[in-house]
Amino acid sequence: NQTFELDSNPHTRLNILTGEWVLVSPHRTKRPWQGKVEDVTPDNRPEYDPKCYLCPGNGRADGDTNPEYTESFVFNNDFAALLEDTPAGSMNEDDLLVANNQKGLCKVISFSPKHNLTLPEMTVEAITAVVNVWQKEFNSLAEIEWIKYIQIFENKGEIMGCSNPHPHGQIWSQGDIPLEIAKETERQKTYYAIHRRSLLADYLKLELKKNERIIFENDHFAVLVPFWAVWPYETMIISKRHVNSIKLFNEAEKKSLAEAIKILTTKYDNLFETSFPYSAGMHQAPVNNGYYPEWHWHMHFYPPLLRSATVKKFMVGYEMLANPQRDITPEFAATRLKEMSVQHYKTSKA
Amino acid sequence: NQTFELDSNPHTRLNILTGEWVLVSPHRTKRPWQGKVEDVTPDNRPEYDPKCYLCPGNGRADGDTNPEYTESFVFNNDFAALLEDTPAGSMNEDDLLVANNQKGLCKVISFSPKHNLTLPEMTVEAITAVVNVWQKEFNSLAEIEWIKYIQIFENKGEIMGCSNPHPHGQIWSQGDIPLEIAKETERQKTYYAIHRRSLLADYLKLELKKNERIIFENDHFAVLVPFWAVWPYETMIISKRHVNSIKLFNEAEKKSLAEAIKILTTKYDNLFETSFPYSAGMHQAPVNNGYYPEWHWHMHFYPPLLRSATVKKFMVGYEMLANPQRDITPEFAATRLKEMSVQHYKTSKA
Ligand SMILES: O=P(O)(O)O[C@H]1O[C@H](CO)[C@@H](O)[C@H](O)[C@H]1O
Ligand SMILES: O=P(O)(O)O[C@H]1O[C@H](CO)[C@@H](O)[C@H](O)[C@H]1O
Repeated sequence: NQTFELDSNPHTRLNILTGEWVLVSPHRTKRPWQGKVEDVTPDNRPEYDPKCYLCPGNGRADGDTNPEYTESFVFNNDFAALLEDTPAGSMNEDDLLVANNQKGLCKVISFSPKHNLTLPEMTVEAITAVVNVWQKEFNSLAEIEWIKYIQIFENKGEIMGCSNPHPHGQIWSQGDIPLEIAKETERQKTYYAIHRRSLLADYLKLELKKNERIIFENDHFAVLVPFWAVWPYETMIISKRHVNSIKLFNEAEKKSLAEAIKILTTKYDNLFETSFPYSAGMHQAPVNNGYYPEWHWHMHFYPPLLRSATVKKFMVGYEMLANPQRDITPEFAATRLKEMSVQHYKTSKA
Repeated sequence: NQTFELDSNPHTRLNILTGEWVLVSPHRTKRPWQGKVEDVTPDNRPEYDPKCYLCPGNGRADGDTNPEYTESFVFNNDFAALLEDTPAGSMNEDDLLVANNQKGLCKVISFSPKHNLTLPEMTVEAITAVVNVWQKEFNSLAEIEWIKYIQIFENKGEIMGCSNPHPHGQIWSQGDIPLEIAKETERQKTYYAIHRRSLLADYLKLELKKNERIIFENDHFAVLVPFWAVWPYETMIISKRHVNSIKLFNEAEKKSLAEAIKILTTKYDNLFETSFPYSAGMHQAPVNNGYYPEWHWHMHFYPPLLRSATVKKFMVGYEMLANPQRDITPEFAATRLKEMSVQHYKTSKA
């Protein structure tokens, strides 16, 4: 008589932040791959590309010219999905056709003047400068009263829809609270109402005690594979202090966050010896909408690669129609990432 | 002073089946595309491929040999994500680490003995034979008492993680009710409790009256772009009769469904003159779990292509972290699909 084992039997795990379950199929890694193989983008970019709209001194789609910046540089997205001058309005026919206007602002942040860098290849000081810009942008967007949520994120790699390899991220802010934030607010609020403690603080405490999914920690942050991770090498950075937004990070915390990002993204690159693609972004409390004591700042990394630089996980039929599903276990992924060097493979080879 | 217009201003639309909103950015199609361009898989497959594990008479990973079948052929997935002999068990540490075992069965259906066909290239009679197999499989899986939900789906195209071009689909059935079905059950139940009518029947009636998003209808089914579509050319087939599963379709309905599938997939192929990739699948009531009078059978098609055979929509940073987002309007997509010929581009060129 077999006993149920998380590392070998199919099972579901609860995402405590959303209330949703992920289906885990640990045995399925034996599946041979005969399907789509991704191209690896050749990594021989120049430090300056005259055709790149993010490089210093170059022109952009809206006719502007970038300054000769030396750290990071922020501007409004020339092809923004959200616009500030959206007129008010809505429709509702019999509760069946329901729509509302949506105001917003989309910004782009170049992380570095150098076209050929990525976060893991930047110094902790240079990444700290990026964290400072994130905080400054967050603070000034939060002063605009109609803005209710500010999403800071990065799409890295062609496979993640990134159309320019110049290191950069985005900030989309908007007049309503988006879906994922609404879910995480509800779950954190419920937990806080019962326990008067942060859900993620309690979760982090348990994870640090068990030490099965922790990849790295420093004074102010821990990096782990969440118990309910969906993407093969999905991770989360959680702040040790219970703060509800980047606004509250002090200088030491900002430097620690920069270090955590550098170490995590370096380990990612080392995993398959490739510039590791992902979408990453911070989750934090809504703004201009009351008080959110339950909210605990964290940052998600959603990387698609599964087996190698060219074989990704497809979230398709069953996943789109029924339920998220993963093949390797979160514990396996955490162990792999933990054992990766903190020295970038490019520099250790040179 | 501008007035709010669905076809030009950013807005959100409510998905009445899930209660979630999609962000629509109609103005964003002007964005130039400098990012990833997909390969088009060359379409010169032979009718029989000696190395294909789905072709008649060939061997499979588990050592079995396929019969010399002439219509469709069903077998258990050799690399199933769900297994029947999963031992019972669960874990819960402080409501923070929560997992349950999950029993299930994964089947594969070859749609045709011919390696080089796809649904739009098959006759209505041959597709009707596939619909018959879906119904038969559904009925026999529903007789297994621990099975609570049966997901019938197809991943088409390499870009949708399909590892073999031989026309085929899958059926995953399992002991719990997956996420998307739980959401759609709740919304349909609530509507039914208030109105004593099917949510989708009322929605379809309104859509047929407005005729802005209808692509095609026959005696028993309508094909439309839902008001809340997320994927650029996402569509839905809705049965005109309110039935809660494929089990209840009669012979005339099964033939009508085959015709609707043929016409929709032909229009898809004609849109960018390519074998149009998608994930598609039926949503229907859970089984062995009480009575679901509110459930209304429908089939979703989620295709990723946005602008051409090689440029897809990326659901990445903002979409993963915050909210689903689309660029063209559902009305634009419906108009394009409506005007496409029902004659397949390959045969009309020949
Ligand atoms: O079962 P297949 O075709 O090998 O695999 C494909 O479909 C599955 C179900 O949607 C996904 O989990 C896989 O990621 C995908 O590659
Ligand atoms: O804004 P970009 O980089 O042009 O576009 C990319 O990120 C956006 C936000 O996640 C997505 O909506 C797009 O599909 C993607 O290609």
